[in-house]
Amino acid sequence: MIDPEKLYKGDKRTLSKFITLTESQSLEHQLQAEELIETILPKTGKAIRIAITGTPGVGKSTLINKLGLHIISQGLKVAVLAIDPSSSIHGGSILGDKTRMTELSREEQAYIRPSPSSGTFGGLAHKTKEAMLLCEASNYDVILIETVGVGQSETHALELSDMFLVIQQPGTGDELQGIKKGIIEVADAVIINKAEEANMDLAQQSKMQFESAFSLTRNKQAWIPKVLLASAIHNKGIEEIWQLIDTFIKYQKSKDMFYTKRKKQDLIWFKSNLLQKLHRSLEKNENINQAIEKASIDILNNKANPITKSKIVFNNIQINYSSQDSHGN
Amino acid sequence: MIDPEKLYKGDKRTLSKFITLTESQSLEHQLQAEELIETILPKTGKAIRIAITGTPGVGKSTLINKLGLHIISQGLKVAVLAIDPSSSIHGGSILGDKTRMTELSREEQAYIRPSPSSGTFGGLAHKTKEAMLLCEASNYDVILIETVGVGQSETHALELSDMFLVIQQPGTGDELQGIKKGIIEVADAVIINKAEEANMDLAQQSKMQFESAFSLTRNKQAWIPKVLLASAIHNKGIEEIWQLIDTFIKYQKSKDMFYTKRKKQDLIWFKSNLLQKLHRSLEKNENINQAIEKASIDILNNKANPITKSKIVFNNIQINYSSQDSHGN
Repeated sequence: MIDPEKLYKGDKRTLSKFITLTESQSLEHQLQAEELIETILPKTGKAIRIAITGTPGVGKSTLINKLGLHIISQGLKVAVLAIDPSSSIHGGSILGDKTRMTELSREEQAYIRPSPSSGTFGGLAHKTKEAMLLCEASNYDVILIETVGVGQSETHALELSDMFLVIQQPGTGDELQGIKKGIIEVADAVIINKAEEANMDLAQQSKMQFESAFSLTRNKQAWIPKVLLASAIHNKGIEEIWQLIDTFIKYQKSKDMFYTKRKKQDLIWFKSNLLQKLHRSLEKNENINQAIEKASIDILNNKANPITKSKIVFNNIQINYSSQDSHGN
Repeated sequence: MIDPEKLYKGDKRTLSKFITLTESQSLEHQLQAEELIETILPKTGKAIRIAITGTPGVGKSTLINKLGLHIISQGLKVAVLAIDPSSSIHGGSILGDKTRMTELSREEQAYIRPSPSSGTFGGLAHKTKEAMLLCEASNYDVILIETVGVGQSETHALELSDMFLVIQQPGTGDELQGIKKGIIEVADAVIINKAEEANMDLAQQSKMQFESAFSLTRNKQAWIPKVLLASAIHNKGIEEIWQLIDTFIKYQKSKDMFYTKRKKQDLIWFKSNLLQKLHRSLEKNENINQAIEKASIDILNNKANPITKSKIVFNNIQINYSSQDSHGN
């Protein structure tokens, strides 16, 4: 049994070690990690969880660096985690480039965790939820979850966070088009970064475009996403972002939407955790592995095509459910 | 039994209908689609399969439009498919914006297929491989597989294609850093698009940076990726791209790497197809669904935490393998 006392006391080395444990592919480590998460669960849930997304180049890291410093200046502890959609193709992870967060990484009250650099076959091994819970048990008040603005990782960020913050750079409607539709559906706020002298007109224009899109599409009874201008590199607009976060969280809590959302996220976590366990158990099944091995040799030797072989192996796998806890549960 | 005769004759409506069938979530459609793919498989494999990747904004669609037109001018048929990493967040798909491919889409010898706009829970429902095979059975000579340059969709493109083409825009080393590492590992060629008057210096610089990176990291006995400049909007450099594709494919075939790669891709297809089948069968299992339903209610009512519930449900699931074809196969 792993002792979480040091974690509760805020020890960063312990926190890092535990996060690494949750990311391990070893079955033994996975079981240990799960036991650990079950143990610490009562100590979690008190932090504010903010997803920050935006395509590469919009200045996300710079903005997170400044926002993190501002949060610390308020007497709070901040953790920065990354959900990395990087496949095996991208060896490097986002947040791998720590140079843009040098200041924040030096702060005692900040914890920065780059994401692991690879996914497994099947690609479901996100453990950001677990990392987040460990940070919360270690008394971090604000969790910033960084993700690049494309695809699966954004959905995942949405499933983890209380607020979804989108970073954009000044741009014309045409350029933003592809991205905008998705953003308009889920963003709680949009930050137009790089709103500096040289492109202030374009920044203002982008702001207005988002605002009008939000006012047209969103339910008037609900939160209408705010659009802010910022220049992270000049530390401008950062305080306003933090105030907006505060306002939004208070609004959500006043409407009871805060906990409803978290409950829904619990259900998603339950299902994805179950799916991960099933994956793991398929991968560890010796008979299935042998069948896959044998089929692979046949495919390589042109004795069978992939799709026919898949059908044959699949038909030999039986999945059954028998409740052993129907009375006790 | 579905009749593929019209597909073989190049009928586009039939092609579209069949691709839609492979993307269907209905179990009946899935079984039909699999039978169809097994039937047409002997008619596939003759096309050249080119993955084209690049982050939004580099001018990918414009370039594909021009490249497609050039391919047609060579007397060939071209199909453009998209692997869309867009989650439920992004309702819009890439290629959804057909305005940048208007010219190509009007051509009789071209077929453009936008990707489906959503993924399922679990997110594994890519059917680009099947769409590609259907295009090949319908006598398309070149398949261009478009994907945005982030994450899982790139891995998938790599698993489908004979050649991996990366589009970049002129940029400084610093901006490219994050992306470059991954590209350097897998690209067969890099196209610096938007190499126009105004930023020709930067384009040249980017070209040299990639070239020196490739020459340092790649095995000298193997293919050293080429870096080309292009300006798709001005139709410049397009012919050179097509020549490079031709050169690369001939090189691969001469070294026997062409078919070795395809065999490896067959294995990956086999495994992912098997995994999809297993997913489907888990999702359709009534007892498992009931257990999930019951657990969900307990979680919502605070009677249990997600992770403990996941463990309980998982422990009630048995996965067995018993070979029924050990003699016949």
